[in-house]
Amino acid sequence: MGSAPRTRTGDVMAAIRARMASRALTGGDRLPSIRSFAATMGVSPSTVVEAYDRLAAEGLIRSRRGSGFYVASAHLPPLALAAIEPRRDLAVDPFWVSRQSLDADPATLMPGCGWLPPDWMPAPALRRALRALARAADPVLADYGGTRGSPALRRLLLARFAEESIPVSPDQLLLAASGTQAIDLICRFLLRAGDTVLVDDPCYFNFQALLRAHQVAIVGVPCTPSGPDIAAFEAVLAAQRPRLYITNSALHNPTGATLSPQTAHRLLNAAAAHDLTIVEDDIFADFEPDPSPRLAALDGLDRVIRIGSFSKTLSASVRCGYIAARADWIDGLVDLQVATSFGGPSPVATELIASVLAGGGYRKHMDGLRRRLARARRDTAQRLRQLGIEPWLMPRGGFYLWCRLPEGGDATAIARAALAEGVVLAPGNVFSISQTATAFMRFNVAQSADPRVWEVLRRAMPAAR
Amino acid sequence: MGSAPRTRTGDVMAAIRARMASRALTGGDRLPSIRSFAATMGVSPSTVVEAYDRLAAEGLIRSRRGSGFYVASAHLPPLALAAIEPRRDLAVDPFWVSRQSLDADPATLMPGCGWLPPDWMPAPALRRALRALARAADPVLADYGGTRGSPALRRLLLARFAEESIPVSPDQLLLAASGTQAIDLICRFLLRAGDTVLVDDPCYFNFQALLRAHQVAIVGVPCTPSGPDIAAFEAVLAAQRPRLYITNSALHNPTGATLSPQTAHRLLNAAAAHDLTIVEDDIFADFEPDPSPRLAALDGLDRVIRIGSFSKTLSASVRCGYIAARADWIDGLVDLQVATSFGGPSPVATELIASVLAGGGYRKHMDGLRRRLARARRDTAQRLRQLGIEPWLMPRGGFYLWCRLPEGGDATAIARAALAEGVVLAPGNVFSISQTATAFMRFNVAQSADPRVWEVLRRAMPAAR
Repeated sequence: MGSAPRTRTGDVMAAIRARMASRALTGGDRLPSIRSFAATMGVSPSTVVEAYDRLAAEGLIRSRRGSGFYVASAHLPPLALAAIEPRRDLAVDPFWVSRQSLDADPATLMPGCGWLPPDWMPAPALRRALRALARAADPVLADYGGTRGSPALRRLLLARFAEESIPVSPDQLLLAASGTQAIDLICRFLLRAGDTVLVDDPCYFNFQALLRAHQVAIVGVPCTPSGPDIAAFEAVLAAQRPRLYITNSALHNPTGATLSPQTAHRLLNAAAAHDLTIVEDDIFADFEPDPSPRLAALDGLDRVIRIGSFSKTLSASVRCGYIAARADWIDGLVDLQVATSFGGPSPVATELIASVLAGGGYRKHMDGLRRRLARARRDTAQRLRQLGIEPWLMPRGGFYLWCRLPEGGDATAIARAALAEGVVLAPGNVFSISQTATAFMRFNVAQSADPRVWEVLRRAMPAAR
Repeated sequence: MGSAPRTRTGDVMAAIRARMASRALTGGDRLPSIRSFAATMGVSPSTVVEAYDRLAAEGLIRSRRGSGFYVASAHLPPLALAAIEPRRDLAVDPFWVSRQSLDADPATLMPGCGWLPPDWMPAPALRRALRALARAADPVLADYGGTRGSPALRRLLLARFAEESIPVSPDQLLLAASGTQAIDLICRFLLRAGDTVLVDDPCYFNFQALLRAHQVAIVGVPCTPSGPDIAAFEAVLAAQRPRLYITNSALHNPTGATLSPQTAHRLLNAAAAHDLTIVEDDIFADFEPDPSPRLAALDGLDRVIRIGSFSKTLSASVRCGYIAARADWIDGLVDLQVATSFGGPSPVATELIASVLAGGGYRKHMDGLRRRLARARRDTAQRLRQLGIEPWLMPRGGFYLWCRLPEGGDATAIARAALAEGVVLAPGNVFSISQTATAFMRFNVAQSADPRVWEVLRRAMPAAR
């Protein structure tokens, strides 16, 4: 977090480091006493204490209570963590994009990743919120907080639900540590090993990873530009009796599709007929130019559970998600979150999000993002078409383009070739439960501006055919 | 987070609120246009935009894209959340203390809770860390961060493990969202429904809540002042073949017991003979005056998994835990954490903890806490004895006293009576898998200074006999 200016403490630390470098002090040696070294350096004893404590925190020296400080016998080399950088030889499975993009070094280009570049996020508002939080009362900084999470953030969310015509009462809302944690809690609450869960094909790859962790059977329903293929959906419900359906209604990941009113209505009727519960993951909702049909609004949180987070719009570092559902389910989810996380999400995280949202700049930030993304979608689509790569549809918003490769294209082979050149792509089959998306690839238009993306992609394509 | 000074934005907000209070503007009415209201108020249009955005964030008004702002038709009353305050009629089960203490109103006294009062925590260091984080690079504030969590914090932890003679290499360490999440991940990784898990009797109540969520059978082994009753431990291993044992070696919760070297050695031998994995939850380690035997140090992370967090020593609001284990298990846990949380713990949280630890004041903070707790243990024990309540042992450190009530005392009845007077106690049976701790109660010495605790306890005791 930035280098500190030169200080007396820093001088004392540098003096000890120099003695270690010159071998005047080696492993196991006792450091000069605090009093004597303070005299040597012409500083106060408290300055030496602070310097020794910092060196101890770095692992260079160790304190033995009541006996003083000693040079660590085998201090860890500073680059030891480099040994566990992302492995590139792993299978192209639902973890592939996460592994390669979450642990990527900063030089990696990531048109396959699932988030906006940091300079598209509202860093000034986050910095203001951090400074405001530094002035918060002690309990906000020190205590666990309530089991349902920050009241301030819950109030803001209730206001937003009202704006979307989703009737949510206070006892129907729970904050969670992230959107993924929200879905995980719901799965733990509703599913048992061996249940069947329905997802879109293609769908967000981590739904598959998550459901595998729950040891459930996963079935898919094909996507259309207006939502799931409703005839196939009805047939799967009748034949396989899935317990749960997890989907994005608005700006579906990866396809960018948006649920039509007719599909939403039929889908809910089919769900009612077969007692299916639906998790509507709405994390891309705020990227829409205007709101599309919401299952939660039509259904009124009877069999639909609405979840969301702020990772795509405000910060993925300050993590926070939410669940809006039937009140009796929320009671059960509160207990489950206490059992598995001891309490609600971090008050520091939820107060930060509440502070940014209450600050009033959110709407303007999203207006700006939507305009910027519209340009990026157009530019990226144009570049893709120059390579013969065709968007399956032009989404109404968001940052994904789901694209078909030219005849014979193998997205997995192209992604492997690009990874070798430091570009993380998202090959279609990581999204496809039926593995029928070999010829598709998802592009993040906000992460595709760098010309090297296109050079590498151009090189990777013929090689892969 | 404190009231804002009077600003032009605040004036505009107040003017709109006044019109709503006087019914000049009511539900569904369109607000004055930004340009016209800026002229009315003599402020810039951007001030009105900000004021409207803040009012929208509060739910008082709503924006319709392209059409302006409208008074919300049914804005939520500010106290709506009061409807979901903690319920007091619930069973005295492993959730009882969590429910009553996490959601308590600030006037509640909580000698039964499991954390230090906020003014015992290092708030100044946390405030400094928040201000430093406000100056961090954009990616720290906006991105998901790596799957294993903050490299800075992992380096600091590796240095601390070296100081404890626990050999941990970088690929054996994973940061998690909290200590509880760390245990939850391990349980998901190692356990299957129907497995048997061994805990101490009594043990931390949330271990039971967590294990119930995993649908495993729970068996207990009685506690002695030097760790589990080793003969009973060996017998349970032979008879029930538990897959996992979860324990605190140092300053056991709730008893305050500390593992002896002999018990540690026999325990590990028994574990090896029956292929038992041990989770050593070391969150109270830093409260010891000097380190007691550690299973992780003796075993070298072969069958022992070490977990910990900073919730008891630095902040329960900035949540962060860690897991040190075999490298192949860590690989599996990394994937499981990606599947269930998408990535590692919040970088904002882990950088804050790293910043406080690297600041060098941690050792001094803990020295002060240990001295303050020693006094509080002595004072609380004296007050308890005046009521005929006897500590089972005087622990070497920490904030718990596990106490036996006078003959005929029923801790559950006393806790119910005290709760009615706004005091949360921790009755013995919430900790006991065999429900044999009716006559015991856990006291948090740092939360017992208020004279009202003793008045309420004195009144509750005869009433409960």
